[in-house]
Amino acid sequence: MIPPTIEWAGDRVRLIDQRRLPGELVMVDAVSVDDLCELIVSLAVRGAPALGAAGAMGIALASVRGDDKNTAAEKLIATRPTASNLAWGVRRAVAAADPVAEAIAVAEEDVTVNQAIGQHGVSVVPQDARVLTHCNAGALACVGWGTAVGVIRSAHDAGRAPTVWVDETRPVRQGARLTAWELDRLGIPCTVVADSLAASLMAGGDVDLVVVGADRVAANGDVANKVGTYSLAIAARHHGIPFYVAAPRSTFDQSCPSGDHIPIEQRDPSELGEVPPGVAVDNRAFDVTPADLVTAYITEDGVSSTPLR
Amino acid sequence: MIPPTIEWAGDRVRLIDQRRLPGELVMVDAVSVDDLCELIVSLAVRGAPALGAAGAMGIALASVRGDDKNTAAEKLIATRPTASNLAWGVRRAVAAADPVAEAIAVAEEDVTVNQAIGQHGVSVVPQDARVLTHCNAGALACVGWGTAVGVIRSAHDAGRAPTVWVDETRPVRQGARLTAWELDRLGIPCTVVADSLAASLMAGGDVDLVVVGADRVAANGDVANKVGTYSLAIAARHHGIPFYVAAPRSTFDQSCPSGDHIPIEQRDPSELGEVPPGVAVDNRAFDVTPADLVTAYITEDGVSSTPLR
Repeated sequence: MIPPTIEWAGDRVRLIDQRRLPGELVMVDAVSVDDLCELIVSLAVRGAPALGAAGAMGIALASVRGDDKNTAAEKLIATRPTASNLAWGVRRAVAAADPVAEAIAVAEEDVTVNQAIGQHGVSVVPQDARVLTHCNAGALACVGWGTAVGVIRSAHDAGRAPTVWVDETRPVRQGARLTAWELDRLGIPCTVVADSLAASLMAGGDVDLVVVGADRVAANGDVANKVGTYSLAIAARHHGIPFYVAAPRSTFDQSCPSGDHIPIEQRDPSELGEVPPGVAVDNRAFDVTPADLVTAYITEDGVSSTPLR
Repeated sequence: MIPPTIEWAGDRVRLIDQRRLPGELVMVDAVSVDDLCELIVSLAVRGAPALGAAGAMGIALASVRGDDKNTAAEKLIATRPTASNLAWGVRRAVAAADPVAEAIAVAEEDVTVNQAIGQHGVSVVPQDARVLTHCNAGALACVGWGTAVGVIRSAHDAGRAPTVWVDETRPVRQGARLTAWELDRLGIPCTVVADSLAASLMAGGDVDLVVVGADRVAANGDVANKVGTYSLAIAARHHGIPFYVAAPRSTFDQSCPSGDHIPIEQRDPSELGEVPPGVAVDNRAFDVTPADLVTAYITEDGVSSTPLR
């Protein structure tokens, strides 16, 4: 129903050009590491698990072209500093005897892992749940299935009949453009809202749970995710609503002790749209939610209130 | 420096066309009540205090044209349900022997009242304060000076050297388009941010206080203001940051017992931008912040932790 977000296509990487959604579903190819880096920076492909596959496939590209793998690794990792999966995917392919086979394995595992996340996550979704999610942690953020949206999707398939509040997700609107597009294709009812309406929906008793993805989870459980996640977590706590983080183990960075150590990407001010000439813009793409605001982490291993494996 | 947002121009109403800011500063005239209603609905003029003046001037227009004042009053009040000043301004002009003189008086008083709000508000702004504000509660939301921005402006004039975080304010971007434009003209340093970054700024210790305007304050102190205000108030409380509401007495609606009774305007879904065809949008323009999250109300009477006169 939705093609793989990213796949190895013989001698190149093929991916859904997410810059053009929801208007049109178009594939774009990367034939070199530089091509792929440009597609990553411009958000043609994004989402931590998808970036893990992209990192591995970038090394596969370098390998088939005879480029230096270490140079390719540096370029790839530098594109997006926050998502831990990118470096993880790069390292897996660099360490492998056959980077192409490894990249394909990374991509295949991603779907399997996400389906396991979804299956575990069904347990936290009540019947007829009104679920709120932020950004896109769906099939488009992964190779397939999705993490946060994967939980919703598994709950839908299990007959829980969830409906979804989709945060628009400024500035790049991944919620309004991508998550709403996915849910609509899956036949899961959803309503797009301004990010800033979420707290009112909670106050009105219209949200049963929040589930989001993650770009990096530190060893202490602090979660870096799309800017606005922290605000949602505070509001969820204020209203006594459970707040779940759904992410594969590859997003958990044991080398990073806490959220303070997670690099936060500043993106181009123009993403925020027109402002008066000369006025400053702070366009941090991510924020950090402290572990104590997370009700539980949903991984391929199960649902746990601690980030420990 | 900034012309009056709205003024009586002999036989017509002249106002800044805020739909075209920050690109260009252009005036537009309303020669009939229907003209004015269209300008109000399309947000050429907006902001509770400015709508108070617009309401009074609408009745003045009906008066000079010989239209029925009660019909005009109904049309005007129906344009925007949340801001209490609109009906207040309409009622003042309807009850006056000379609606034109009354409308001019409403507009003149607005500036005086806002300057008093600003003067009182200086006391809550520490030296070198980093102030966060939402939407536009500046000169453009009033006839002149501003309420929340008026406080910042008075503090600036008093040498407190405030700097300002300006929430973009989705979906219509009044912060990025209007507040940033005003502050830039006033020489007050500001940085535009996505609404959802505000909580991170607080967590980082970069916000000393939040000050916003109001569209209606209920008798119990609950505050209706632009959607996103409630989320900010929760985040401010979570971080122990004071949260102030600056508004004239005309915004306080003693006939409205609590926030539950404030009508919340649903605006056109298209304001939120592109979503996949057929996907629902909930575009509530306002939310309600309970009184217990408000540190103090700043009115022309002074700074008070209770909404009582």
